[in-house]
Amino acid sequence: MFQDFKSTADPTQGPPRLAALRNAMAKAGLDGFLVPRADRHQGEYVAPADERLAWLTGFTGSAGFAAITGELAGVFVDGRYRLQVKAQVAEAFTPVDWPETKLGPWLAEHLPKGSRVGFDPWLHTVDEISGVEKAAPDVDLLPTDNLIDRIWQDRPAPPNAPVRAHPVELSGERSSDKRARIAKVLKDAGQKAAILTLPDSICWLLNIRGRDIARNPVVHAFAILFDDARVALFSTPEKFEALGPDPAIDLYDWDAFETALDKLEGPVRVDRKTAPFAVSARLREAGIAVDWDDDPCILPKACKNEAEIQGMRDAHLRDGAAMVEFLAWLDREAPKGELTEIAAATALETYRAASNQLQDISFDTISGAGPNGAIIHYRVTEATDRQIVPGELYLVDSGGQYLDGTTDITRTIAVGDPTDEHRACYTAVLQGMIAISVARFPRGLAGRDLDALARAALWRAGRDYDHGTGHGVGAYLSVHEGPQRLSRLSGVKLQPGMILSNEPGYYRPDAFGIRIENLIVVQDAERLGDARDQLDFETLTFVPLDRRLIDIAALGPWERDWIDRYHGEVRAKLAERVSKEARAWLFEATEPLS
Amino acid sequence: MFQDFKSTADPTQGPPRLAALRNAMAKAGLDGFLVPRADRHQGEYVAPADERLAWLTGFTGSAGFAAITGELAGVFVDGRYRLQVKAQVAEAFTPVDWPETKLGPWLAEHLPKGSRVGFDPWLHTVDEISGVEKAAPDVDLLPTDNLIDRIWQDRPAPPNAPVRAHPVELSGERSSDKRARIAKVLKDAGQKAAILTLPDSICWLLNIRGRDIARNPVVHAFAILFDDARVALFSTPEKFEALGPDPAIDLYDWDAFETALDKLEGPVRVDRKTAPFAVSARLREAGIAVDWDDDPCILPKACKNEAEIQGMRDAHLRDGAAMVEFLAWLDREAPKGELTEIAAATALETYRAASNQLQDISFDTISGAGPNGAIIHYRVTEATDRQIVPGELYLVDSGGQYLDGTTDITRTIAVGDPTDEHRACYTAVLQGMIAISVARFPRGLAGRDLDALARAALWRAGRDYDHGTGHGVGAYLSVHEGPQRLSRLSGVKLQPGMILSNEPGYYRPDAFGIRIENLIVVQDAERLGDARDQLDFETLTFVPLDRRLIDIAALGPWERDWIDRYHGEVRAKLAERVSKEARAWLFEATEPLS
Repeated sequence: MFQDFKSTADPTQGPPRLAALRNAMAKAGLDGFLVPRADRHQGEYVAPADERLAWLTGFTGSAGFAAITGELAGVFVDGRYRLQVKAQVAEAFTPVDWPETKLGPWLAEHLPKGSRVGFDPWLHTVDEISGVEKAAPDVDLLPTDNLIDRIWQDRPAPPNAPVRAHPVELSGERSSDKRARIAKVLKDAGQKAAILTLPDSICWLLNIRGRDIARNPVVHAFAILFDDARVALFSTPEKFEALGPDPAIDLYDWDAFETALDKLEGPVRVDRKTAPFAVSARLREAGIAVDWDDDPCILPKACKNEAEIQGMRDAHLRDGAAMVEFLAWLDREAPKGELTEIAAATALETYRAASNQLQDISFDTISGAGPNGAIIHYRVTEATDRQIVPGELYLVDSGGQYLDGTTDITRTIAVGDPTDEHRACYTAVLQGMIAISVARFPRGLAGRDLDALARAALWRAGRDYDHGTGHGVGAYLSVHEGPQRLSRLSGVKLQPGMILSNEPGYYRPDAFGIRIENLIVVQDAERLGDARDQLDFETLTFVPLDRRLIDIAALGPWERDWIDRYHGEVRAKLAERVSKEARAWLFEATEPLS
Repeated sequence: MFQDFKSTADPTQGPPRLAALRNAMAKAGLDGFLVPRADRHQGEYVAPADERLAWLTGFTGSAGFAAITGELAGVFVDGRYRLQVKAQVAEAFTPVDWPETKLGPWLAEHLPKGSRVGFDPWLHTVDEISGVEKAAPDVDLLPTDNLIDRIWQDRPAPPNAPVRAHPVELSGERSSDKRARIAKVLKDAGQKAAILTLPDSICWLLNIRGRDIARNPVVHAFAILFDDARVALFSTPEKFEALGPDPAIDLYDWDAFETALDKLEGPVRVDRKTAPFAVSARLREAGIAVDWDDDPCILPKACKNEAEIQGMRDAHLRDGAAMVEFLAWLDREAPKGELTEIAAATALETYRAASNQLQDISFDTISGAGPNGAIIHYRVTEATDRQIVPGELYLVDSGGQYLDGTTDITRTIAVGDPTDEHRACYTAVLQGMIAISVARFPRGLAGRDLDALARAALWRAGRDYDHGTGHGVGAYLSVHEGPQRLSRLSGVKLQPGMILSNEPGYYRPDAFGIRIENLIVVQDAERLGDARDQLDFETLTFVPLDRRLIDIAALGPWERDWIDRYHGEVRAKLAERVSKEARAWLFEATEPLS
């Protein structure tokens, strides 16, 4: 099992650690210290050695940070974690509603003029620090070594997992070609080098994968890409032993990174939204010009090539077969009323692992019965584990990491007989999911331009959901990757090859949650009508929708047609991939609507 | 009749006038001169005295401009006017595709370094001129007096129509209250005064209306609003004789405007997108600080109050009754195959005028049969007048100006039997129009966020339309007003009271055009479901849709419901307002779909 269901929160450990931190602050002459959740690579998952926020406060959410002063210990968390933080931290800590309250104004309010606040310059980006400085001009923000690391006695070792080559059959492009392509971008921009600090950018560029953190098959490293396509790579060299040497890649120990920065010729491209503050500070100290510009791998990585898309298709059929086995099992077992959320999540991982190709799950499974389904980022633990009761909805959001692709799927299932309200809400969510699935649209549009399509049916009923409609997804990389999103907040133009989730939802607190999620990939649409240049989405996910939850009379004809067509494809693609017992279930689940 | 159908183009007059202009340029030491369509008030319609572009070139479109050099005479027009300009200008003029080709780059390409290009600083905004200067840094742009006015011998007199008070029963707010409200905005921003140059802003602020130009009931004037709510008004004082004096409004002749600017205390608020270049140039010469900021009346004017909305409702029922008389007549007469576009437009204006309340039409009626319907801004003339033939579609886009409101409606009508293709395309356009009509959405969204809803059905069929979904509409003011729009290009948040058109379309060149347009007003939605804060649209326009063009089987249930509910309201609201003959037609036209 990759997932565990332990309740890691232990509020009692926080206060003595907080006292030790304040002690260290006093010794360092600091009035405050920042403790982010992020590591040096700004990802969603961090290694145990980087769980500083959880170690100090007890809070284990995937986003947030703490700001410690002599008097206060604010733990900043967003809407997803408002309840969780209260259960996980001791009274010595004060939960702060973020981003409603931002760090800068909070520091300005709680610290006198001229206060000195330390931060680890490797854990914060330039954008973060300059945002705080702007909002709290009377507070001095001082880069310092990490005070947590000073007091954390039994801190785990940093990750050191072996690196594996990601074969060109799956990556679709040789690393040398990628490097030449990106180096040309630098050259055209007059940039001598680019600093890469995001693990998935480096893994994509070098066609490598690793196991340095859970869920995301990435390698922890920093890299410098030069405008002649050479790469200097900084990590733990022994991790790379299984790979043969590459004359264009010079491998160094972590320690060599800073001195390598000193010797660069400028201008050097640095991403102020993702690179550690320490990188550009070091470059500037050495008198080297910095060009603020996006990490040059992000957009090319987002636009998957045909081999990557084919890998994603293959991974999704394998994953879809496991989901069908799981759903068939669930339909047999759940109505008895004895399953729990953990039992279901465990069974699902077992079905996925049965392919012998599962490298990891792509994130901790969200397995929520009844009211737990309404907690958007619910992670079931032994403390919260709930019976799956007939008459309720069960929401399961999960995914797998396979060598050929990353999956992410949500299905909401009626256990026993659903109510009319369940069906009305499910149908409106489904109409939104279909609206994106069938959308054709002119090239040049961004996620912002399409987001309303996914919400219109819910809006009409006075309902909505408090999250984006979709996020970018990597190809055997992070299940959340940018820059594209289906979101009111995203102005990034959609381009062929971009993979997105399509996951509208509806959540009724203390009652039920509904989310339906397929992955889709942007493609040039087949010519139709007289439109000049349209894009549309190919669906990657093939798993039945729960027909018992669909109010057929509420659907438009194109919606009914899409469901029947989709179920026909699901059946055709998966029938030969599942067990006999699951096949019978699959055939029934994919019958035409009427 | 307000509208005439004369073909005003006379290409033969252009060349001698162009020669005279070049002569004047040489005398003034200029290598180029700019001739915009705009007058000093940047509106869509201009007075005959301001038809400089048409006088010089023959081009009569509502947008465009000319740039004259010694060698070239470029006439810049957008996609709507590509065909028209070729028919209207002589060979001495070169049509230029605008905005694909912009003025600045064109000047830079066609004029040597150091060339001197004159422009009338009253006819261009600061934004326009600085845009050109940026793109053509080696060309000197010089404000000068208007060379056209020097050579235009029989130039008509400027407009001088009497001003009328717009009663508070219709405006819903006393002018003194509006002035106090806007003055407070200035005071809060530390601005001592604002310069107002847009006629509809001034008319709104002072609760006045006029007849200085066709179609828009505005008064030509400039105004200065001080932060103590006093107003200095610059126009032709005798126009205002019918109004009593107002102690808070000082009325001056046009001539006094510039010297009044010299005496202002700064900072003075000026809108760089709408105010003449000459205004801020004069202020700067006098050493007065300029605050670039929106015309402070635009947003308050856009958010109509309850009296204005009630006036719009009343005007729309009156206008709707005239439309029903017209459509009933059309249905009797058109199938005979003897009507023409001009005959139809004439009949429609006659039905509108029969109320004895029609002040003007709100724009020149677009009356397009068959392929002429596909010309988005078609204006029928004696030269283009076309028979309305059975088997074709007829598109009519028109509106009225009434004291209580401004209307704008488009209906597309099947003459004889429509084809399946007609019905498929009409139905997709209608689905877009319904999607906006039934939309509920969270407060804070802009037109950009909703535009896709109006296009999704067309997009799915590989179709689209090359214009926005909707424009703002004034209350007995301009039929096109900002800042709100339903458009991919509009980030202006929708607010209660904003009136918009809802007019998706589909145009098949050389075959047919479809557009369906109702006016709608943004309102706080009645509470429904658990949504916290939704807005929706109240429909203002009540006129039947052509049921013969609706493919019922293609509709979703909420679309069918909307149509039947709408037709029920149309019938209930208009039955007592129309003739007996029209009533029989109305009842048939508003039968439920099935």
